[in-house]
Amino acid sequence: MNEQLLTFLIPIAGALALAYAFVRAQWVGKQDVGTERMAEIANDIAEGAQAFLRREYRVLSVFVVAVAALLAFANMGRADSSPLIALSFIVGAFCSALAGFIGMRVATKANVRTTNAARTGLGQALNVAFAGGLVMGLSVVGLGILGLGVLFIVYQGMFLDASTTATLAESIGTVINVLAGFSLGASSIALFARVGGGIYTKAADVGADLAGKVYEGIPEDDPRNPATIADNVGDNVGDVAGMGADLFESYVGSIIGTMVLGAAFIPTLAAEGGMPLGAVLLPLVLAGVGIVVSIIGSFFVKVKEGGNPQRGLNIGEFGAAAIMAVLSFFIISFMLPAQFSAETPIVGAFDYTSLKVFFAVVIGLAAGTAIGLITEYYTATHTKPVTGIARQSITGSATNIISGLGVGMYSTGGPTLVLVLAIIGSYSFAGLYGIAIAALGMLSVTGIQLAVDAYGPISDNAGGIAEMAELPPEVRERTDTLDAVGNTTAAIGKGFAIGSAALTALALFAAFMQQAGIEAINVANPIILSGVLLGAMLPFVFSAMAMNAVGRAAGDMIKEVGRQFAEIPGLREGTAKADHKRCVDISTAAAIREMVLPGLLAVTVPVIIGFIDKNMLGGLLVGVTVSGVLMAIFQSNAGGAWDNAKKRIEGGVTFDGVTYGKGTDVHKAAVVGDTVGDPLKDTSGPSLNILVKLIAVVALVIAPLIA
Amino acid sequence: MNEQLLTFLIPIAGALALAYAFVRAQWVGKQDVGTERMAEIANDIAEGAQAFLRREYRVLSVFVVAVAALLAFANMGRADSSPLIALSFIVGAFCSALAGFIGMRVATKANVRTTNAARTGLGQALNVAFAGGLVMGLSVVGLGILGLGVLFIVYQGMFLDASTTATLAESIGTVINVLAGFSLGASSIALFARVGGGIYTKAADVGADLAGKVYEGIPEDDPRNPATIADNVGDNVGDVAGMGADLFESYVGSIIGTMVLGAAFIPTLAAEGGMPLGAVLLPLVLAGVGIVVSIIGSFFVKVKEGGNPQRGLNIGEFGAAAIMAVLSFFIISFMLPAQFSAETPIVGAFDYTSLKVFFAVVIGLAAGTAIGLITEYYTATHTKPVTGIARQSITGSATNIISGLGVGMYSTGGPTLVLVLAIIGSYSFAGLYGIAIAALGMLSVTGIQLAVDAYGPISDNAGGIAEMAELPPEVRERTDTLDAVGNTTAAIGKGFAIGSAALTALALFAAFMQQAGIEAINVANPIILSGVLLGAMLPFVFSAMAMNAVGRAAGDMIKEVGRQFAEIPGLREGTAKADHKRCVDISTAAAIREMVLPGLLAVTVPVIIGFIDKNMLGGLLVGVTVSGVLMAIFQSNAGGAWDNAKKRIEGGVTFDGVTYGKGTDVHKAAVVGDTVGDPLKDTSGPSLNILVKLIAVVALVIAPLIA
Repeated sequence: MNEQLLTFLIPIAGALALAYAFVRAQWVGKQDVGTERMAEIANDIAEGAQAFLRREYRVLSVFVVAVAALLAFANMGRADSSPLIALSFIVGAFCSALAGFIGMRVATKANVRTTNAARTGLGQALNVAFAGGLVMGLSVVGLGILGLGVLFIVYQGMFLDASTTATLAESIGTVINVLAGFSLGASSIALFARVGGGIYTKAADVGADLAGKVYEGIPEDDPRNPATIADNVGDNVGDVAGMGADLFESYVGSIIGTMVLGAAFIPTLAAEGGMPLGAVLLPLVLAGVGIVVSIIGSFFVKVKEGGNPQRGLNIGEFGAAAIMAVLSFFIISFMLPAQFSAETPIVGAFDYTSLKVFFAVVIGLAAGTAIGLITEYYTATHTKPVTGIARQSITGSATNIISGLGVGMYSTGGPTLVLVLAIIGSYSFAGLYGIAIAALGMLSVTGIQLAVDAYGPISDNAGGIAEMAELPPEVRERTDTLDAVGNTTAAIGKGFAIGSAALTALALFAAFMQQAGIEAINVANPIILSGVLLGAMLPFVFSAMAMNAVGRAAGDMIKEVGRQFAEIPGLREGTAKADHKRCVDISTAAAIREMVLPGLLAVTVPVIIGFIDKNMLGGLLVGVTVSGVLMAIFQSNAGGAWDNAKKRIEGGVTFDGVTYGKGTDVHKAAVVGDTVGDPLKDTSGPSLNILVKLIAVVALVIAPLIA
Repeated sequence: MNEQLLTFLIPIAGALALAYAFVRAQWVGKQDVGTERMAEIANDIAEGAQAFLRREYRVLSVFVVAVAALLAFANMGRADSSPLIALSFIVGAFCSALAGFIGMRVATKANVRTTNAARTGLGQALNVAFAGGLVMGLSVVGLGILGLGVLFIVYQGMFLDASTTATLAESIGTVINVLAGFSLGASSIALFARVGGGIYTKAADVGADLAGKVYEGIPEDDPRNPATIADNVGDNVGDVAGMGADLFESYVGSIIGTMVLGAAFIPTLAAEGGMPLGAVLLPLVLAGVGIVVSIIGSFFVKVKEGGNPQRGLNIGEFGAAAIMAVLSFFIISFMLPAQFSAETPIVGAFDYTSLKVFFAVVIGLAAGTAIGLITEYYTATHTKPVTGIARQSITGSATNIISGLGVGMYSTGGPTLVLVLAIIGSYSFAGLYGIAIAALGMLSVTGIQLAVDAYGPISDNAGGIAEMAELPPEVRERTDTLDAVGNTTAAIGKGFAIGSAALTALALFAAFMQQAGIEAINVANPIILSGVLLGAMLPFVFSAMAMNAVGRAAGDMIKEVGRQFAEIPGLREGTAKADHKRCVDISTAAAIREMVLPGLLAVTVPVIIGFIDKNMLGGLLVGVTVSGVLMAIFQSNAGGAWDNAKKRIEGGVTFDGVTYGKGTDVHKAAVVGDTVGDPLKDTSGPSLNILVKLIAVVALVIAPLIA
């Protein structure tokens, strides 16, 4: 099998993913939606979600056109790039948006069908919810690989000059420079989607919760509460579409980062007589094979009536990861020489073996799993830290908050140590390429990981619909079971997301240095150190913007709920219908308005600093990566721990012989923690994962311009 | 005037400070303590504070002996150092502890005498409170300069070899290496004092507050509440002794850092024919003159009856800073040649002028003031951010917390930009020496700054005593006025503390590189980058430890209060006396127990990493500095903003036509924020300032060993 053939197989893997996603989506669509009331609610949610995405994409299209024009202009007449980078950018942005759209679309179909299936049993409900998640997961990886694969073929056809090894290396460099626009498109849409979706969902959630508190006689999750539909829409646009865009950009970023670093091996590999592009194509091939493995893994996700759905999810996800690990050994052995010595920028002379590259992949998988398990320890319902928060709730919300902040900050320790070991380990095995390939290892089975992730919010939404449609309690119990069992697997997925974000950012950082012709970034230079300081500050300010936006939007929502109860006669008594649409509009408008500033900040700061001093930009990347990863872990885990401390108390918890449960003062104190944690874990925290990569991608894209 | 004479004048300035401090302390002691009840309360507080310091110092003496032995052993038989570094370490630790002890001692005398003076008027109360603060401030700078000055003379006598310029430079290098132990001693005691004092004060404060909430019928700040004495002790050991140790180490650290960097100029300055040690002695001379200026400034702190005490404090502090700026121009012109070119390690060839060195001092002063003003904007009672937090309290404690976290994170932006400008500005004027001298500029009038800082808690304590002694309300009003007007000046002081911590850490970082023979720290190397990541993680874990410690200790306190009310008949009715001593013991034991682990973490981690890889230690320093400075700003400002949002509501605030005040639900929500902010702003936040410098000093001290 030669390189050419491999190159053509890659987009085919992407197409396969999309085809299978289409089949599963059709299947989901054929399921019964249940009662009329259920259909009506589901329709409201789906309409709200689509309305939001439409308005979001309309705003973003202006941004995309503007940036595309800038990119085309800046890369005009350059030998090492081309104005076509604007095309890559547009395609990347489009694929990212499309992945979010498809995922959200199927999720809003799957939710009500999951509810309906849960009326008869657990097994079929799992099938529907997981199928919804799988469509999302496969769309993300499918569009990523298809887009990258096709553009790579097109650009190869235009720029490739294989006459000598030197021209080959140079022209592949150009191809990848132009291709990097795809990653930029994906990342910038992802950031806006994550921030916008995160603000939407938490404005609605916090607003709906607090409205119940501020205005007497409006229970928090009552169907009469006008904000409930917005709350459910939020789950879809935030947790589903936002997460899809997030992983799409991680996936694409890690592939591009690895390709850039792999391009440095072309002369060596050509001289060895193997595939000259082996190291460049390896990430694409691993990703393509990962798609097939994800589809295979999805067949194992099943549950018998009365069985534990956790088992099926675990077998599916861990099985896929294990198969992938084994296969990657053969793929790497096939594509890279058993042994080769290469001198690359930054790393210098280094002895590589295909076995050691494989070890880097294994390190990535092991590190992702380890971070996931640590995450679970700090956030799962029955662990020591979460129980500690529950206990501290006895003395009120202040101690609940203090101990939650403590748990979140403390929880940065373990993942940091794992990351450090993974970085040093994969680097000592295979240099910077090793770090990049470790990130890719974590992300190779994104298809099924994302399916498991997205399955959670779908089940959650299904429960909400059951409540609003006033179905019998056993339906809600079943959807709750589905939702709960996904948590462990989702925590592991979060570990992979954080770990891969850190390693991908490092890979992109190295790729940036290589493309910008920077040999070393000496932090003893105060200008570079200032860059580090500035970069480290960005996640703080960015988080603050996101949090303040949630606060403001939630305030608007609370006022609107109050207005409706005051002005709509009969609403309080349940005889009149609430105006859900207005609440949906408020969340939508707020999310769109508030996502712009942080998004622009992320895109413009690296450009400005880069044109001031490219080394300072290097410092900025280091600062934003380090501080962003830590703040993301802190915020996500604090939020998760507060959430589950509340759930722990709701399940009834006994301290010193006294049992506390739902409705007690202790529970009320824990609800405060949960509400504080909401924007941390669902708005600012996850956005930071994207922020660090987006800034690195911006740097990579402008690298040739400031070299 | 020659170098020799100058060298002898330096410790004399220190002795002068101590002598004047002694005079003022005597004066404070001669004031009347008031009623018998007041004397009794004051005595309880003073005893509790002394008991704590005694126990703390007993534990720390073990640590000091152990580290001294290690230092002596590690530096045995080295040409560039000497086991005498252990002596420096012990003297530094002793001076730091003594400064804390003197400050605490006089503060516990001044508090009740301020209360008594406030019974007749504002003017004399200000005099007493400020005199107490001044004793503290002058003890800190006096002991610092006396200790450093005498040791410098002793070590010069032992090691100096002025036979050639080369031997002079080398032998001064040895002198400074040995002297660096003084800074290590100061910093490690400071960290323990800050952490221990911070845990003590907040355990007592949070415990006393919450006990009132958990057990019905115990008002929060009632004299019957057994935790009130511990609360007042806490103000003294945390805010006074802790802050004294903090600024002592900043002060010493910035002097040592500047001396190390100044030593690199010896060959150049000798060749120019000026003072060869001009750049080494400059920080000592500036500090010595700063003492005299601080004493002069203190004469301007006065208030007429009915006048605004803020005016006196401002004239004193800003006047001193202005005089210092002018004098430093002449000092620098006198000690450094008008123009000289030198090639130093890291910076390389660079053209210096005495004028540009002076500009660096001015930049330091300007940056400190700017950060202070920004700090005030984010935390003062009537500003937009604080009003915003007050408004968000309408919808409950959750939104109060979210918006406080937002304000804290957002507030990192401005100070970071100022720091970046200060770093780049002072570096471009005078290289790394410029950064160090900018830090020194901020700290040169520490004497009076600290007086103003310490005056706050003394006034606060005076108010507490007025309450407990059940004096007429106008007494409390006067002490409150005193306390309130110190806030702006204290905010400026905080700006100087944060700014100088960052710049001092950078100076120490540069000094470490110079002594360890590191030319560049390339963060593109993943091992160094791992160091950055590890370092950035430390402030998170360290903060978590401090916060969790406060939570645990507060829990113990709450239980003890409950026990006393259950077991002491008549306590609730006010007929029996509470057992204050037990509460004091609980806070003491908890603080001592909980300070050990974070303290050891700070001291051992850099040693371990340093012996693994000195470059990785360089990365660690960058990470801990950047993340520590940001986390410190975030935590201090969030805590300050919550505190004042609560005070804003207590003063009555109107939103949308509704006025909210003390006792409303809105106020209760704001109290939660205040309580959450307590450990952030008074325990973990300020400890981080020390952490970053301590780790840098540890690195500097082990630098010759790992070079």
